[in-house]
Amino acid sequence: MPSGKRKKVKNRRGEPRTVRVRSTGGNYPAVIGRGSLSQLPLLLKGKRRPSRLHLVSDRNVLRHHGEAIRKQLRRTGIPFSETALDPGEGSKTMEQMQRILRSAVRSGCDRNSCMIAFGGGVVGDITGYAAASLLRGVEFIQVPASLLAMVDASVGGKTGVNIPEGKNLAGAFHQPRAVIMDLDLLGTLPARQARAGWAEIIKTAAIRDLRLLSLIEREREALLAGSPPLLAKVVERCVRIKAEVVEEDERESGLRMILNFGHTLAHGIEAAQGYGQLLHGEAVAVGMVFAARLGEGLGITREATADRLEALLAAFGLPVHLSKLSCSRILTAMGRDKKRGPRGLRWVFLSRPGEALICDDVKPAAWQAELKKFIQEK
Amino acid sequence: MPSGKRKKVKNRRGEPRTVRVRSTGGNYPAVIGRGSLSQLPLLLKGKRRPSRLHLVSDRNVLRHHGEAIRKQLRRTGIPFSETALDPGEGSKTMEQMQRILRSAVRSGCDRNSCMIAFGGGVVGDITGYAAASLLRGVEFIQVPASLLAMVDASVGGKTGVNIPEGKNLAGAFHQPRAVIMDLDLLGTLPARQARAGWAEIIKTAAIRDLRLLSLIEREREALLAGSPPLLAKVVERCVRIKAEVVEEDERESGLRMILNFGHTLAHGIEAAQGYGQLLHGEAVAVGMVFAARLGEGLGITREATADRLEALLAAFGLPVHLSKLSCSRILTAMGRDKKRGPRGLRWVFLSRPGEALICDDVKPAAWQAELKKFIQEK
Repeated sequence: MPSGKRKKVKNRRGEPRTVRVRSTGGNYPAVIGRGSLSQLPLLLKGKRRPSRLHLVSDRNVLRHHGEAIRKQLRRTGIPFSETALDPGEGSKTMEQMQRILRSAVRSGCDRNSCMIAFGGGVVGDITGYAAASLLRGVEFIQVPASLLAMVDASVGGKTGVNIPEGKNLAGAFHQPRAVIMDLDLLGTLPARQARAGWAEIIKTAAIRDLRLLSLIEREREALLAGSPPLLAKVVERCVRIKAEVVEEDERESGLRMILNFGHTLAHGIEAAQGYGQLLHGEAVAVGMVFAARLGEGLGITREATADRLEALLAAFGLPVHLSKLSCSRILTAMGRDKKRGPRGLRWVFLSRPGEALICDDVKPAAWQAELKKFIQEK
Repeated sequence: MPSGKRKKVKNRRGEPRTVRVRSTGGNYPAVIGRGSLSQLPLLLKGKRRPSRLHLVSDRNVLRHHGEAIRKQLRRTGIPFSETALDPGEGSKTMEQMQRILRSAVRSGCDRNSCMIAFGGGVVGDITGYAAASLLRGVEFIQVPASLLAMVDASVGGKTGVNIPEGKNLAGAFHQPRAVIMDLDLLGTLPARQARAGWAEIIKTAAIRDLRLLSLIEREREALLAGSPPLLAKVVERCVRIKAEVVEEDERESGLRMILNFGHTLAHGIEAAQGYGQLLHGEAVAVGMVFAARLGEGLGITREATADRLEALLAAFGLPVHLSKLSCSRILTAMGRDKKRGPRGLRWVFLSRPGEALICDDVKPAAWQAELKKFIQEK
């Protein structure tokens, strides 16, 4: 693979590279690498220069990186205003979405304004929905500040908030104008948040890219130590996979559902615990191990897949078992999951590492029995 | 016009006729006439048969027509649930939108569900936005139960709610699967509500159809008495005009704005009074007279247009003057109007009856002076 090798040499410092994401609303760039935040002014120039900017972030991210992004916003010469959310999934509500809208309107935003979502997945999702809703739709730029948000939520145009009945049950498909993934933002991420990001990275590899999965297994220590060129490579690969899948199926009628590997149980866990005890990535880690075990039990997943996945997730410090959660609450919450086909809950299984398939005719008794076993197992 | 005459004879009793509305999301039918509610089951049949229905309405409409629509819903054989809102603009909030979503989710709605908006403009707008948001988008059918909602809000895909900063500032473009306009629903409309509908009808005629305007002037008494064939004809003509305009400009970047004739001031009035004192149609009536006077003052509108419009609106019992409202509160509210171009507030003027144009370079001093005169005028 000489071309692959040349790229590696070229990009020794993890310098910004651009992936184009195709969508029905037009293509948009995802700029990945160290220092890519400085490309923000460039992305706001030209014919589509916004009239105003409205920055949405959370207080933790602003404490660490507020000045860095304000500096770039000032460089644009466009007037801007801000809404700061409390950190955490508890902010992902309709009430906070309305707060963002009110603050944007009071600041003078019009239809030519652009929102900037600067933070983790919560900020990206709620800001995207606010942008989709403000005056029936304004542009927004995703500037994910966590590993999880970079490889998962920031590409693909899914936006939304939680309602008490479940996660992401209200929202919109709304593609960003651009995504900026600056690896320099990751240094201040708490260790637990960083680990949670690896759950989605491992998921992406597990469903679609055996070579990436092997690379992560092999380079585990360098990746955990935060090696920029390796990290840039892994993030770029994940973004390309996500972009490929989303391009083929923007509105999630088929293929895109494989991105939900591990999420069927994860959403149940998160809803049952009222959000916030396990991080989303942690719940997905548990959910992937469960889906692999269930898949093996049903004869869909090649044997030893669950063990391999469990070992890798555990090596990244992620939870792989479930305890202390009422099975009946999880079952109720899963009954409300929006990923259901005509025949019931929709599951994503691996046929083998690197390949996923969707299955919506698993008998409830089958997965419920497996779940009871899984929860007792510890 | 022999073909026009033949149509008149054919449709002596105002029997249902279908207008096709084209949109980027596909065509949809608007079924207009007496008894068209009975076509609801037909519109839900076939390959796109929904898994569930969720009816949204207001308590007044349900008191008069609840059984009529439930009877049709039962005929579909599809399970259905309901959310009842309090009547009036005060229900058009994000809180009530979330209430609709929660109730739909608890009833078991999934992505193949369909909402039914049964009521006036408030119900149509909030239900459309809820349908656009539920699981990032489900289908909905508009069943307008007021004259205003039939000729205005139910066609065109604009949906939304108010926020404290202004009307319709949060929402989505979301086209209905079908619109059913049953003239038999109008009999129970309070007289004031019925009159308010005429404001939008007169608006539609004023911006685009001099013949319709003359017909309304000529047949005023028969129309006010509720003659079904005449009413069906007028509603159908208004829906065709609205559909034409919306087809040309679905996302309101140009032509569609002419539908906002009278709305620039109307939105200011409604926001300044906190919604609910003047009905929307009443505020539009006042706004049209003002826009016509301002247009005449600026030399854009042919002379005597304002007087002609004022006489017709007054004959339909609509307000044509503004009193008792603080000018400064209206000015503040108008400063937040989302209809603004790069050069300021966007106005719609008539060049002459039946023809409209958009103008976004009116100097604030000019319309503000005219407004002060207009408010003092009484």
